[in-house]
Amino acid sequence: MYFHDKRLQYPVRVEAPDPLFARQLQQAIGGVEGEIRVCLQYFFQAWGARGPNNKWRDMLLHTATEEIGHIEMLATAVAMNLEEAPLSLQESAAEANPVVNAVMGGERPRHVVEGMLQRHLLSSGLAAMPVNSDGVPFDCSHVYASGNLAGDMYANVAAEATGRTLAVRLYNAAHDSGMKDMLSFLIARDTMHQQQWLAAIEELGGAAALPIPNSFDQAMEKEEFSYVYMGTEVNGAPPPTGRFNTGRSMDGKAQFSTIQSMPLGEEPVLGPARPTSGAQAEQIGPKR
Amino acid sequence: MYFHDKRLQYPVRVEAPDPLFARQLQQAIGGVEGEIRVCLQYFFQAWGARGPNNKWRDMLLHTATEEIGHIEMLATAVAMNLEEAPLSLQESAAEANPVVNAVMGGERPRHVVEGMLQRHLLSSGLAAMPVNSDGVPFDCSHVYASGNLAGDMYANVAAEATGRTLAVRLYNAAHDSGMKDMLSFLIARDTMHQQQWLAAIEELGGAAALPIPNSFDQAMEKEEFSYVYMGTEVNGAPPPTGRFNTGRSMDGKAQFSTIQSMPLGEEPVLGPARPTSGAQAEQIGPKR
Amino acid sequence: MYFHDKRLQYPVRVEAPDPLFARQLQQAIGGVEGEIRVCLQYFFQAWGARGPNNKWRDMLLHTATEEIGHIEMLATAVAMNLEEAPLSLQESAAEANPVVNAVMGGERPRHVVEGMLQRHLLSSGLAAMPVNSDGVPFDCSHVYASGNLAGDMYANVAAEATGRTLAVRLYNAAHDSGMKDMLSFLIARDTMHQQQWLAAIEELGGAAALPIPNSFDQAMEKEEFSYVYMGTEVNGAPPPTGRFNTGRSMDGKAQFSTIQSMPLGEEPVLGPARPTSGAQAEQIGPKR
Amino acid sequence: MYFHDKRLQYPVRVEAPDPLFARQLQQAIGGVEGEIRVCLQYFFQAWGARGPNNKWRDMLLHTATEEIGHIEMLATAVAMNLEEAPLSLQESAAEANPVVNAVMGGERPRHVVEGMLQRHLLSSGLAAMPVNSDGVPFDCSHVYASGNLAGDMYANVAAEATGRTLAVRLYNAAHDSGMKDMLSFLIARDTMHQQQWLAAIEELGGAAALPIPNSFDQAMEKEEFSYVYMGTEVNGAPPPTGRFNTGRSMDGKAQFSTIQSMPLGEEPVLGPARPTSGAQAEQIGPKR
Amino acid sequence: MYFHDKRLQYPVRVEAPDPLFARQLQQAIGGVEGEIRVCLQYFFQAWGARGPNNKWRDMLLHTATEEIGHIEMLATAVAMNLEEAPLSLQESAAEANPVVNAVMGGERPRHVVEGMLQRHLLSSGLAAMPVNSDGVPFDCSHVYASGNLAGDMYANVAAEATGRTLAVRLYNAAHDSGMKDMLSFLIARDTMHQQQWLAAIEELGGAAALPIPNSFDQAMEKEEFSYVYMGTEVNGAPPPTGRFNTGRSMDGKAQFSTIQSMPLGEEPVLGPARPTSGAQAEQIGPKR
Amino acid sequence: MYFHDKRLQYPVRVEAPDPLFARQLQQAIGGVEGEIRVCLQYFFQAWGARGPNNKWRDMLLHTATEEIGHIEMLATAVAMNLEEAPLSLQESAAEANPVVNAVMGGERPRHVVEGMLQRHLLSSGLAAMPVNSDGVPFDCSHVYASGNLAGDMYANVAAEATGRTLAVRLYNAAHDSGMKDMLSFLIARDTMHQQQWLAAIEELGGAAALPIPNSFDQAMEKEEFSYVYMGTEVNGAPPPTGRFNTGRSMDGKAQFSTIQSMPLGEEPVLGPARPTSGAQAEQIGPKR
Repeated sequence: MYFHDKRLQYPVRVEAPDPLFARQLQQAIGGVEGEIRVCLQYFFQAWGARGPNNKWRDMLLHTATEEIGHIEMLATAVAMNLEEAPLSLQESAAEANPVVNAVMGGERPRHVVEGMLQRHLLSSGLAAMPVNSDGVPFDCSHVYASGNLAGDMYANVAAEATGRTLAVRLYNAAHDSGMKDMLSFLIARDTMHQQQWLAAIEELGGAAALPIPNSFDQAMEKEEFSYVYMGTEVNGAPPPTGRFNTGRSMDGKAQFSTIQSMPLGEEPVLGPARPTSGAQAEQIGPKR
Repeated sequence: MYFHDKRLQYPVRVEAPDPLFARQLQQAIGGVEGEIRVCLQYFFQAWGARGPNNKWRDMLLHTATEEIGHIEMLATAVAMNLEEAPLSLQESAAEANPVVNAVMGGERPRHVVEGMLQRHLLSSGLAAMPVNSDGVPFDCSHVYASGNLAGDMYANVAAEATGRTLAVRLYNAAHDSGMKDMLSFLIARDTMHQQQWLAAIEELGGAAALPIPNSFDQAMEKEEFSYVYMGTEVNGAPPPTGRFNTGRSMDGKAQFSTIQSMPLGEEPVLGPARPTSGAQAEQIGPKR
Repeated sequence: MYFHDKRLQYPVRVEAPDPLFARQLQQAIGGVEGEIRVCLQYFFQAWGARGPNNKWRDMLLHTATEEIGHIEMLATAVAMNLEEAPLSLQESAAEANPVVNAVMGGERPRHVVEGMLQRHLLSSGLAAMPVNSDGVPFDCSHVYASGNLAGDMYANVAAEATGRTLAVRLYNAAHDSGMKDMLSFLIARDTMHQQQWLAAIEELGGAAALPIPNSFDQAMEKEEFSYVYMGTEVNGAPPPTGRFNTGRSMDGKAQFSTIQSMPLGEEPVLGPARPTSGAQAEQIGPKR
Repeated sequence: MYFHDKRLQYPVRVEAPDPLFARQLQQAIGGVEGEIRVCLQYFFQAWGARGPNNKWRDMLLHTATEEIGHIEMLATAVAMNLEEAPLSLQESAAEANPVVNAVMGGERPRHVVEGMLQRHLLSSGLAAMPVNSDGVPFDCSHVYASGNLAGDMYANVAAEATGRTLAVRLYNAAHDSGMKDMLSFLIARDTMHQQQWLAAIEELGGAAALPIPNSFDQAMEKEEFSYVYMGTEVNGAPPPTGRFNTGRSMDGKAQFSTIQSMPLGEEPVLGPARPTSGAQAEQIGPKR
Repeated sequence: MYFHDKRLQYPVRVEAPDPLFARQLQQAIGGVEGEIRVCLQYFFQAWGARGPNNKWRDMLLHTATEEIGHIEMLATAVAMNLEEAPLSLQESAAEANPVVNAVMGGERPRHVVEGMLQRHLLSSGLAAMPVNSDGVPFDCSHVYASGNLAGDMYANVAAEATGRTLAVRLYNAAHDSGMKDMLSFLIARDTMHQQQWLAAIEELGGAAALPIPNSFDQAMEKEEFSYVYMGTEVNGAPPPTGRFNTGRSMDGKAQFSTIQSMPLGEEPVLGPARPTSGAQAEQIGPKR
Repeated sequence: MYFHDKRLQYPVRVEAPDPLFARQLQQAIGGVEGEIRVCLQYFFQAWGARGPNNKWRDMLLHTATEEIGHIEMLATAVAMNLEEAPLSLQESAAEANPVVNAVMGGERPRHVVEGMLQRHLLSSGLAAMPVNSDGVPFDCSHVYASGNLAGDMYANVAAEATGRTLAVRLYNAAHDSGMKDMLSFLIARDTMHQQQWLAAIEELGGAAALPIPNSFDQAMEKEEFSYVYMGTEVNGAPPPTGRFNTGRSMDGKAQFSTIQSMPLGEEPVLGPARPTSGAQAEQIGPKR
């Protein structure tokens, strides 16, 4: 179960509110690279963790719980960036605020409104929403929790890699020192989270964890295709050469090689449509 | 641009069609772990590949193109498994087919229909659809292509890890030797694809690729939080110990440590609502 | 504006309620081939109709308004089919009803529940919902209203073609005479609606309406590719021959022909990533 | 910011695991009436709370934080109910477990699998997912946080009303005493949450909070239509009589009355399509 | 069944067309606070209404039918606001129209296009679509019809509260007198609709309708938690005091109180993964 | 199975990159009128094609394969149009590029960013995504493949009609000669694709293919309603006269006529709610 402290994990300050930056920050809340996603992903991985001990559940819960606080920081930052946003196409609340004016450079209100997420104005009353920077709501199909611990750790590395890439882009796009400060904290945490999931993979055996899942007897797969890079270039020109088709495989079990793709199967022929299947008469085969 | 061969990449045979297995196979077509996802993911990564040379675009195109053929194999397998499915709640087309009867064990048609994806019967005319095994359509927000090559490679490893986990589950659930054979081929390809994306990460520098993106000067992040595992247990009990908070960090730049989370920020106070913002009168501050 | 009559457009009777058939009927309510879709599609086409007179708005409004009554009939039918559905995994309300028992054939309640849309039991209180037969909510992106009248008419034909196909499948799947009667009415209306949109295309000029939109000067398109079927078979084998690549084109403006696809463009080379774009260092080109 | 305790808010016990009940419980996790929704709804209302003091933010945070623990309990219950689920269409893990057998009544594994959410087997490794009981992922557009405190409180009452209705349905559907015990706790909390949001409305002024938002000068609305129930029956028959069109209005400002709807506007005529708008030539008006 | 009148329920006039306002109006059509939602919500509640008499079905049908006319008014308003929108990034149709110029203040066409919903230009031919103001299509999962009459009435109050809040925001944002006039009518109708659903709750018993559903015997819930506000602040600091945790409960059945949340359950321990479940070997328990 | 050629089907050149046009092009990639849709639609129709011979599968595969190359061209065009997009709200990469400056007319960077799809900047690293021009991801429910060949051909005509309408709008909106050239090729292909699907309908029998499906015995539909246009105008005023209600029906089987809609059914009365169904007590009927 869970508890809260009214205070934020890290200070959130906005000196020159900017509704366009509020929109951009939404990507870090409700985007697929955002904090709702990692928060729920780590929670669902924890709550479904199976194995001989509870260590992984435990380890995941700490970080999942931390992530709620990140959503909170970003939601607070969005609300603060919207403080002076114009409410109509004519009158700018920003007019009286010289700091805002400096950022906006004297834009007319309708320009500022044009760049906003319209729902910040119309739906949320100048507050954050669980949507991305183009207004698309977060959808929980992005919560990856497969029941395979190693697979989930790679999903977590990927999530934190795109998460930190996003945070860096926001940092580079920002103009406000308070926002840059907050983002420099979130970037640091993303650094750690990348590290910790990679460390978990090492603890799970590193190369010995491969292929994922490692509980399936590889003798049952068509092993002649397990370490082969397949080229599909129409003229049969060889694909580029790289570590991915040269040398020892990453799990140490085989040598990488390259072949040109060729059809091993036949042209498939499906049975004709059945009389009551709603097909056209022409598609229907003889009575069976 | 693209070309096709009418034949399949690998043979698809179904001896005892089973509409419930057709439903399960849909996860490998339109599920988030499925083949439409990796196909489009590798294509969009290829088509957006930036960098001093075209090697990565090239390398991705081969595998993306291969994946179209995997969707095709699975779609064919779904249609074949639906060949004998009952079309009504009363009459079983399977009745005349002793092999199907053996699998079904003499089920009444309404049982068979109950276990089907209804849209296989009502919408597709006994053919595959781009939906998952519970009927949810694939949604392209799952196509991860971030513009950061290393981040994308980890996303690809994660996709192939959940993809192979799914294929193994399907293999274990299957009863048909033709289906087991097809899956053993797809599992082998997933093995290779895991390997090749991991090899690409090694080629991109391995640990030197971290943290992702490695083009951001780490001096600009709050480095005191970059290699610290944060505990959030309410009583301050220490989190579990593991590789993720012990020893040298995975990128070799620091030592992992552990601290208890504490609020560094204050309780946030947002400005009051504005008079024309649609809030309740009680929320509205003094005129500004 | 709109008015209602409490009575239904056509009688809805259910003699032997069947929760599995209730589930199947949902496809005709909230499926992409269903009545919410055509209803909203015709309304949005009407409300956005532009042109020198109001005839098309008028013509569309009649049919759109009719469709509300079709949703109502189907929603009523779903509720009636759910009347005797079991509410728990143990006790069947159907037990006391010999007609239901006859349909169900003495199934245990948990079998009946297994075949139901779970949300019929848990979310709607045994009533219809705007979802399809696998529980996916209708999403208004399927409301096609392009502002091009001829294009919209073809979209309407397509909607009524899949709609009638669905209704026929439901008719064939049904066992209840009341349900078959209701569906025979809806099938008839779908017949008419296919006819009327095709008639509208004829009134819009038939072949003269092509290509859609016919307001674009064809001299501005690359006309050498406008009536050519392109083959993509890898070995250059000719594509099948048919009306689609033989004889006069449907608009009478040209002769159909066939060519093998060949790349006319070059391999694209994108500019390298920019220093603050969040890419890996390896992707970043020289300072510009 | 947030903290956790490894223990659950209330005990979760499952004596006879049942994968069909696991599926039903998903509605309380990822359904629109479920716990992810209220959790995020209360958080986003808190994080965006504007007003002269921080009381409402504070009050909302306590309940939002409690709700995380409810998701956790339900996710645990789903995983426990899936413990003995069959993994293939042939072999039932349940076979060896007499308690499970008692519940299932000796079903063949393929029956049990038919009633499952397929993704419990294929995607999550027998654990909970953020989806509803028919497998549709939760989508954050259901997080209502309008920036109007009274409107949000009514949204919360509605959420808890449908939430408690769902919990009651699950209680009635359940057969396991552990599950009934857990649900009796969640039902009690839903009782309280209904109460507390209604109490908040009273504290916000009760009738004086109406109409929402109460910060808009009613003199600017067309007040002749503000307290009038409009009948739309085609024959002009009077609508039913009830509190909703009889007596003093709920806000005490007017008397309810009833009128028959009549068009006050004209048939709209849109301007014709413009030459480069992609319409058919027939829709395009004279050059402007 | 349903009928229409070609005329609008209330006049829709636009003096100075503004494509940015057209975009904002979309929220009232396809937003979650919009008219498609309430229209379908009231219809599905009506069509599924169960109870000893048909009064509630009847009462809901009148208002549902009225709402179709509101969608029509708003769709007309959107099309009118788009009449002069630029069709390209270079040439402004507005150039010749001095009224439009006055509103736009001489903007270059690309500015106007930037603020538009792109699909107004590209997909609908300058007409309304069933999407919100940021272009997200309406999704029918927002149609709340739970089968519990009191719960549905609260959902309706909530819908009209956010609906009127939206209409007020649009009124405040608008500059066109015709648009303000139309909105003042819609705001009035939202006032009435809030009133009528609250009146229905009174008719259903007011406090006696609580807790919803009132058909569940409260002796079966854990009543010691039914009227208790739970604090989750980490340091045990008491939550704020208000009507929601002080005095008699809203249903008059108990006294509100406050406690600090404490775990009553244990740390959950799930069974280990099974051998063929696709987990990593390390997660798999001893053979069972 | 599939092969690729590194080169594009047709040249893609961008002389003056424009991030707003990049956004507009997204509609042709991930919009419902776009290329991902037709590509997958033709593939799923091919892979599920049933009938006495494989001609239709074959014919569809060629065009589906061609469409992959169209997505590739458009994705390349998007990336090229984003080459010079500003990465922050302050600094314009475009500054140094006089061609870009000419297009932008010296806009400040924040104006350019305002008009962009934010995720082009934040999520994709200045590359295409499978989303539409307002940022909504493509969702595969738009892949229409009904199992009825004639219905699918009409769906294809509709897709190509809206597709060509979109391409024409993009052509008209464009300012870059390279973009106009690329679009003139795509428009030509859309011309052909409209033609070829219409030709397929002719080959399927033209009028003899109607009503779709033509395999259902029309004697089983209520034929008295099969060729009747129904008016719903409240005052009984006759609907407009046109080809759609005058003369011989399009399939030649009947004469069109017109009637005024009248209710043929009764007011429906559903059974009352059951005691454990979660309804309010007032809705529950006598014990059964």
